[in-house]
Amino acid sequence: MISIGEALRIVEGNSVRVGDEKVALEKAAGRVLAEDVRADTDMPPFNKSAMDGFACRQEDLGSRLRITETIKAGDMPQGQTGPGQCARIMTGARVPDGADCVIMVEHTSDDGEGHIRFTGAKTAVNIAFKGEDLKEGSVALQKGTLLRPQHIAVLAAAGCTSPVVSRQPRVAVLTTGDEIVEPDRKPEGTCIRNSNGSQLMAQVAAAGCIGDYRGIAGDSIDETMTAVSSATEKNDVLLITGGVSMGDFDFVPRVLLEAGFELFFEKVAVKPGRPTVFGRRGNVFVFGLPGNPVSSFTIFELMVKPLLYRMSGHDYSIPALRFPVAIEYQRKKADRVALLPVIVNERGEVMPVEYHGSAHIHALTHAWGLMVVPAGVFLYKKGDLVDVRQI
Amino acid sequence: MISIGEALRIVEGNSVRVGDEKVALEKAAGRVLAEDVRADTDMPPFNKSAMDGFACRQEDLGSRLRITETIKAGDMPQGQTGPGQCARIMTGARVPDGADCVIMVEHTSDDGEGHIRFTGAKTAVNIAFKGEDLKEGSVALQKGTLLRPQHIAVLAAAGCTSPVVSRQPRVAVLTTGDEIVEPDRKPEGTCIRNSNGSQLMAQVAAAGCIGDYRGIAGDSIDETMTAVSSATEKNDVLLITGGVSMGDFDFVPRVLLEAGFELFFEKVAVKPGRPTVFGRRGNVFVFGLPGNPVSSFTIFELMVKPLLYRMSGHDYSIPALRFPVAIEYQRKKADRVALLPVIVNERGEVMPVEYHGSAHIHALTHAWGLMVVPAGVFLYKKGDLVDVRQI
Repeated sequence: MISIGEALRIVEGNSVRVGDEKVALEKAAGRVLAEDVRADTDMPPFNKSAMDGFACRQEDLGSRLRITETIKAGDMPQGQTGPGQCARIMTGARVPDGADCVIMVEHTSDDGEGHIRFTGAKTAVNIAFKGEDLKEGSVALQKGTLLRPQHIAVLAAAGCTSPVVSRQPRVAVLTTGDEIVEPDRKPEGTCIRNSNGSQLMAQVAAAGCIGDYRGIAGDSIDETMTAVSSATEKNDVLLITGGVSMGDFDFVPRVLLEAGFELFFEKVAVKPGRPTVFGRRGNVFVFGLPGNPVSSFTIFELMVKPLLYRMSGHDYSIPALRFPVAIEYQRKKADRVALLPVIVNERGEVMPVEYHGSAHIHALTHAWGLMVVPAGVFLYKKGDLVDVRQI
Repeated sequence: MISIGEALRIVEGNSVRVGDEKVALEKAAGRVLAEDVRADTDMPPFNKSAMDGFACRQEDLGSRLRITETIKAGDMPQGQTGPGQCARIMTGARVPDGADCVIMVEHTSDDGEGHIRFTGAKTAVNIAFKGEDLKEGSVALQKGTLLRPQHIAVLAAAGCTSPVVSRQPRVAVLTTGDEIVEPDRKPEGTCIRNSNGSQLMAQVAAAGCIGDYRGIAGDSIDETMTAVSSATEKNDVLLITGGVSMGDFDFVPRVLLEAGFELFFEKVAVKPGRPTVFGRRGNVFVFGLPGNPVSSFTIFELMVKPLLYRMSGHDYSIPALRFPVAIEYQRKKADRVALLPVIVNERGEVMPVEYHGSAHIHALTHAWGLMVVPAGVFLYKKGDLVDVRQI
């Protein structure tokens, strides 16, 4: 049994970058940038007024100012702003040469015959200077950026309308177990519905990958072997759930070895999720995940997601968010890291939700995150700060 | 100028539910559930072993136990577990009647001729009891739930393979301004590229809606009127950026009024984002957003997202996350709520990122969230707790 940290180092150390492709800007959200994007102009591209007001010289603020022109956004100023002059100017418009500040309309009074006077006590400059956000040629967005809406704006501003991004890793999802039936069937007697399959497919899509659903393989070595072989023909990653604990019919690790995978670990010191298997065959990776849906969900978040993002060139990490715990928390065994579904209440405290164990998928429906209890920790007192991993 | 709270109440009070539709389970992630989903069986549907081990009676733990059968997941137990008996059982298998606990393999010793003996000090029950997670007929997922992967698992377990969800609101995105050129053109002289358009389209998609990009309208009343009219023919919401401040050429509010919209507010006490307009014409809603991309991004997160989710039947809110601020923060004016891009550092503290103002889109590229400084607050001392809104 190895620690999560050790397991993660093995996973990340083994990942292989998939290839790249170009996408249209409007399809780029959720993808990972594969090349640095540089600004092809200064940003802003000219001295730009940040206000509606009057562009003038700061040394003239005590004088009566003659309005020489009106400049709206998109207009080229007709002339320079000289001593005793000002230009009426709109937000976003180009500040005329000579002017070094824009005074707000509210800080001026009409002084008759096309003149104004500054009535404020002092003024801010109110100019966004050419290149102050980004210089032409400098890196606007770094390779490896996971593109969210705010990054799309930067690509647009840099004129990058078909960014080079990572190809989306293809991920096969395979469930095992004689007792598992698909959700459209009513489970009889000793069966339960397959909730892992569609949950993992949704997690795969949310991580920006392409899922390939491979159905359910019964508990036989032959059937599992056939399913593993075909699932790994054209995919980059296989996620296989169930059949990984110590029971006599849990032969997934054995099948994976026979299918040519090298297995790096088969147990991780985490609760839920101990029987987690990770392996590799060339550039194809496999995770054997526990059959319980809370476990497979959690291990996906903890270990599969970092692999998938690494394969896309994104160095995935989430910040450690720390909150006071709302109630005392105790446990009897502390050999593993525990992850417990929690909400954050109105007071900003962490409160565990009702949780019956790793098959209790309803516990996750209202949870905001997973509280992380390190190995060795038996007790948190009310108010102790705990790390929470958002889900 | 009204407060954000007041503005939000107006927005939420005006929202109108769009219609519903059925989707396949595999397309349901990101959608909002429009009907309660009930469990059609108990969950778990039978007493289920949570371990690989031996099912037996707790009162027999001191005795030598005869192994009567082996039950793997999916098997129907052959008989009851009587006094002095046990059944070898696998995780997920049905616990035979009569047994009231499952003892771990590690807590047993082979006692010869098909017998075992319990060697542990005590045992947990290790059974997930029929219906303990959810009773047949009870609500598994509530109407209004925004479906994430963990909810997809619950739908699957409940056999809900074509959930009724809200139709996706259709949202038109229109940019205004003579100075704006599309990203594929290099801006000359006084022009800048349209970064709002693609950013808003990405935000709309991330909020589970269907965007309809309407291009750029120049600064003329006629052109804007034509664009507004056609953009609101078949869409539920119009987002129009630019032309909403006080400049002489900012006529968006006027055009919206002429187009038959009732305007509820035209200024909100928030920085950035003061010149935000909200209006309604029948079941069509409009937001006039500031032209600066940081402002439009922020107002989308603060006010447009709640509208869009409400229209889908989801009561969108995000928990107040509170962190200590890493450095002293001061400002000169405190008439508006300020939203500042920040990261959360390794110590769990909030650190503002370099930020030149509402046109500085690069400030958002590394930000984890927006620190919320309430109106009236001039100063935070290092270590003060501040509210942060994740972006």
